[in-house]
Amino acid sequence: MKARVGIVGATGYTGEELLLLIARHPNIELAFATSEKEQGQKLCSYFPQFSLPSDMIFISADQALDHPVELVFLCLPAGESARLGKSFFSQGCKIIDLGADFRFADAQEYDRWYHQPHKAPELLSQAVYGLPEWYRKEVQGAKIVGNPGCYPTSALLALLPFNQQDLIAEQPIIIDSKSGLSGAGKTLSRASHFMEANENVVAYKAGRVHRHVGEMETILQRDAFSPGHILFTPQLVPMARGIFSCVYFTAKNAIADRDAMQILRDAYESEAFVHVLDDIPSTRLAQNSNHCFLHVLSFPETNQIVVFSAIDNLGKGASWQAVQNMNIMMNWPETTALI
Amino acid sequence: MKARVGIVGATGYTGEELLLLIARHPNIELAFATSEKEQGQKLCSYFPQFSLPSDMIFISADQALDHPVELVFLCLPAGESARLGKSFFSQGCKIIDLGADFRFADAQEYDRWYHQPHKAPELLSQAVYGLPEWYRKEVQGAKIVGNPGCYPTSALLALLPFNQQDLIAEQPIIIDSKSGLSGAGKTLSRASHFMEANENVVAYKAGRVHRHVGEMETILQRDAFSPGHILFTPQLVPMARGIFSCVYFTAKNAIADRDAMQILRDAYESEAFVHVLDDIPSTRLAQNSNHCFLHVLSFPETNQIVVFSAIDNLGKGASWQAVQNMNIMMNWPETTALI
Amino acid sequence: MKARVGIVGATGYTGEELLLLIARHPNIELAFATSEKEQGQKLCSYFPQFSLPSDMIFISADQALDHPVELVFLCLPAGESARLGKSFFSQGCKIIDLGADFRFADAQEYDRWYHQPHKAPELLSQAVYGLPEWYRKEVQGAKIVGNPGCYPTSALLALLPFNQQDLIAEQPIIIDSKSGLSGAGKTLSRASHFMEANENVVAYKAGRVHRHVGEMETILQRDAFSPGHILFTPQLVPMARGIFSCVYFTAKNAIADRDAMQILRDAYESEAFVHVLDDIPSTRLAQNSNHCFLHVLSFPETNQIVVFSAIDNLGKGASWQAVQNMNIMMNWPETTALI
Amino acid sequence: MKARVGIVGATGYTGEELLLLIARHPNIELAFATSEKEQGQKLCSYFPQFSLPSDMIFISADQALDHPVELVFLCLPAGESARLGKSFFSQGCKIIDLGADFRFADAQEYDRWYHQPHKAPELLSQAVYGLPEWYRKEVQGAKIVGNPGCYPTSALLALLPFNQQDLIAEQPIIIDSKSGLSGAGKTLSRASHFMEANENVVAYKAGRVHRHVGEMETILQRDAFSPGHILFTPQLVPMARGIFSCVYFTAKNAIADRDAMQILRDAYESEAFVHVLDDIPSTRLAQNSNHCFLHVLSFPETNQIVVFSAIDNLGKGASWQAVQNMNIMMNWPETTALI
Repeated sequence: MKARVGIVGATGYTGEELLLLIARHPNIELAFATSEKEQGQKLCSYFPQFSLPSDMIFISADQALDHPVELVFLCLPAGESARLGKSFFSQGCKIIDLGADFRFADAQEYDRWYHQPHKAPELLSQAVYGLPEWYRKEVQGAKIVGNPGCYPTSALLALLPFNQQDLIAEQPIIIDSKSGLSGAGKTLSRASHFMEANENVVAYKAGRVHRHVGEMETILQRDAFSPGHILFTPQLVPMARGIFSCVYFTAKNAIADRDAMQILRDAYESEAFVHVLDDIPSTRLAQNSNHCFLHVLSFPETNQIVVFSAIDNLGKGASWQAVQNMNIMMNWPETTALI
Repeated sequence: MKARVGIVGATGYTGEELLLLIARHPNIELAFATSEKEQGQKLCSYFPQFSLPSDMIFISADQALDHPVELVFLCLPAGESARLGKSFFSQGCKIIDLGADFRFADAQEYDRWYHQPHKAPELLSQAVYGLPEWYRKEVQGAKIVGNPGCYPTSALLALLPFNQQDLIAEQPIIIDSKSGLSGAGKTLSRASHFMEANENVVAYKAGRVHRHVGEMETILQRDAFSPGHILFTPQLVPMARGIFSCVYFTAKNAIADRDAMQILRDAYESEAFVHVLDDIPSTRLAQNSNHCFLHVLSFPETNQIVVFSAIDNLGKGASWQAVQNMNIMMNWPETTALI
Repeated sequence: MKARVGIVGATGYTGEELLLLIARHPNIELAFATSEKEQGQKLCSYFPQFSLPSDMIFISADQALDHPVELVFLCLPAGESARLGKSFFSQGCKIIDLGADFRFADAQEYDRWYHQPHKAPELLSQAVYGLPEWYRKEVQGAKIVGNPGCYPTSALLALLPFNQQDLIAEQPIIIDSKSGLSGAGKTLSRASHFMEANENVVAYKAGRVHRHVGEMETILQRDAFSPGHILFTPQLVPMARGIFSCVYFTAKNAIADRDAMQILRDAYESEAFVHVLDDIPSTRLAQNSNHCFLHVLSFPETNQIVVFSAIDNLGKGASWQAVQNMNIMMNWPETTALI
Repeated sequence: MKARVGIVGATGYTGEELLLLIARHPNIELAFATSEKEQGQKLCSYFPQFSLPSDMIFISADQALDHPVELVFLCLPAGESARLGKSFFSQGCKIIDLGADFRFADAQEYDRWYHQPHKAPELLSQAVYGLPEWYRKEVQGAKIVGNPGCYPTSALLALLPFNQQDLIAEQPIIIDSKSGLSGAGKTLSRASHFMEANENVVAYKAGRVHRHVGEMETILQRDAFSPGHILFTPQLVPMARGIFSCVYFTAKNAIADRDAMQILRDAYESEAFVHVLDDIPSTRLAQNSNHCFLHVLSFPETNQIVVFSAIDNLGKGASWQAVQNMNIMMNWPETTALI
């Protein structure tokens, strides 16, 4: 019998991508999809490209609580996930939050970056950061998974192999990331108007103001890392999907090029979705997939290291990674529906 | 002494393009630029890319009436041009309306397509349709010029050489046009959201519902043409600027390929901005210019003719043509600031 | 046990797309992939984004004949498919040709459009045109399937419902199609150089010279249709994938809008991949899928009909349809690996 | 009387852009345009979008030496400029080289980065680096100007204000630059194939291998700067024109945000083409212009500085800056034809 799952917030880009994957997944069936705005409309009219039950309609998130499911994906703004997650959790339902509410272990740290008190701080101790390549065991037993942000996924997969071996000096880590426009969401805005985004590159919230700085530093601190050193430059480039991060840091000691590559290879040799390439990857390789492609250059004269990381922000950076997390939580083969 | 000109509605894409051209134009100076929304803001902050007087601020359209100018460009929604144009006209100011209010000679016809009564019907007899290659003499003496719509410019330059010689049969004329997104304007909308428009082609208002059907038919009727025959398919393609129109019609009699080409060449041989090419043109050729490129294929077995027309919708399709009209109205060399 | 399949010509865009689908398909395994140019290179180095056997290398097409398979996909230029198909056929292998060599029943007609004698005319009587929605039964028993061209797929799905009921008048049928650049293939060319294709729309081989005119007319002739009436305008628009066809024809008698829609709905009501929408579709809906989306407008005053058809040229227009054909030939559920 | 100028290598993107500007320039006329490949073809057929003399044909570079001009623009590969420049120089002709041969004062340094001996080392002492905002006086009297590379223009305008005041610490300077595809030139290549470049971001020649590292370091060394510290990551993003550089360096001492901005403002307050904005600029602002837009963020806790620099790679990064240099060399108003 198929497991029943639901999506709360199904009309955004991450929800849409989840619907695609759920239709492909042999072990699950969709129990509900919510949208406050499209409530009552048929799913198959809104998404004619998916093979959806012809009579299923969008319901509200509150109505969804009456539909028992084994697992729910939350695609909601900060604050909303915690509020609704609490109710789903109390029903014994597993939760994968594609938003930010379950990424921080510490409610105060969350508050600092999201400028609002956490709405379910009592659940944080049960929440697991869903970056399976590093926290697979925690995800296996988790009831609540905070699915990583898109930029942090790309940067942490580049940094963690070095950070866990305490190879990073206490100097600025520069993360220069270029994202496609799907990362900017479905809400209309000047920055995502075609005429502004097309034929354009622009940085925004550069430095230490973007919320993902907090997410990255809170994860890096689990190992040897003192916060305050990340400089992050998120940028929009004229494409739909993909993040290309150049991660620059100073190593504590000189590392030969070949050794830097080996550190990455050792970290990911048995992984299905993280690949260390002989050349600098491009985001196109990762499009519509759960893959992350990495490459590293080392400059021993100055102890400088550059790691290149390419993902699909809606893939490994959001919905595909969420399904990877579900597969792990449900004890299914990790690559199910993701090939 | 430079002539003083003003722009009403300067923050949209056509207004922005006019500012670019005015800065290049040796004979004029900008007296004012209006914006209801940006009123009080400095122009040079809003448009740092133009060499604008550092102390000039956006004023309201009503305030603009206190600034005497020789000529005013109106970049306004339907209805607004007529209302304001009336006031400027009463001050003896020449008017070039980039909107639709002065393109129809007949107020009822305007009402039929724009679903509102015309706000200055008494001025229509003085208004001239500003397609200089066909109505240059009228433009020369005009006080009010209705600057043609972008789609009609591309289609009429293709059709008029044949229509004026009464070569077009009373059968459907199919105008299949592909436009860049600047044609959809600066107002945020689902259709012009990057993620919707990028990697996408879509038709809208196809058939006989788009307002430009009315504009095209009203101009074609000046010669032998009975209305009701145009089928028009406007489409959005993922680029910023450019219109590519394929204009299909049946000739009254078979026309050899070479003769069809000659008809175009004869029509435009002395024109600086309309060029008949030996091959099918591309919109890229016309980008950021006042040029229109044409090519024609004829299929004598079925009397079928296809004319290909490429323009920049903000160029010959709007602001550059408006400056061409100004040059003619002011008796300046027609290509001034347009090379 | 999984069926073994091979791909001849695996490094082009259609071959790449087949590799993606084969990895997803539960009933088959890849026996070989050929490339004359990449011979000897590892597949997993060339395509790091796919989960491919780590030791598989590209072999030459001639070597492939030593690897027995149940079915082979041919992704080859005109002429090459027939030559190699002959050899594979003689081994008892089923063939799906994504090229043009098995789309024509008549070798002379093939010669007329492809300007070369057919290399295996004796096989043409066994070849089936693989448009499953219309020729499913033939495909079921077929040993050789000529997979339809991308433009013909989009246009025939629009025209066949009307043509089979003999509703189309003997007047020009205009097919105005806009294609993404993947349709232009992987070979470097001026037209597919980024700087030429980006921010550009251009038509090529317009009229009756493109080979797909022959393919469309040869299929339409199976029903009431006299050839020579199609005018076809293929165009390149700046996107990777997708074809948007506007198909204009004159009906023998006036057809009400609602009746025209019903004709489409009746034709495709039980189909998994062809969908008749209430609004004009966009190509984005069809991206990365086997879907075709249709809509029709009728203008009874002039008997004019416009059908809008949106597909992914690499999806329903090539590789995904090829897998659909395989599923039918192998008696597997038709949607396997295609959801 | 107009000054006569010539273009050697007129069919590439920088040559094309020069033709546009020359047509607009009131003080010059085109004497010749060379192309080895298009020799004998009419310019107005190759470039129908420009108002070119109808009888002018492309000649070879060697033939051009017979046409006396006051100034010649060289748009040639490394090595070729020096070879031809020598001949033009001996005729008393002023030279603006858009290639790399006259950017280095030292022939050995040139050899190190361009892997070939310089072909006119005796001329290097007369050559001036054409970054007018910093070397205007030298340009004024120059006979040979080495027009800066596109990436170096964007980075040096960001760095020089700090470097000239000796504020930069001896630590890695990271220059993370994103360029549109026109920077990759007109020669067909895999990287500039639409299907590869579209919907993609990729870095190439990252680290210290790109030739522009040499150019940037050789200029910075004129002031306090020890070479070997630049890490440069050039990247291609899917757009036609524009470079967005994020320049990260460590200051010798903490600099307050406001002070960092003031350093930029002081450096460029009287410049027509370099603008310090209150917000992070976008490349779109600089499109089709000679402008450079700058903004800086400072992080005094770590002495880290980030300067953002946006230009058009064909504008300030190539042909428009070349015309700026010509205006200075010829004692014309610096903004002539560049507004």
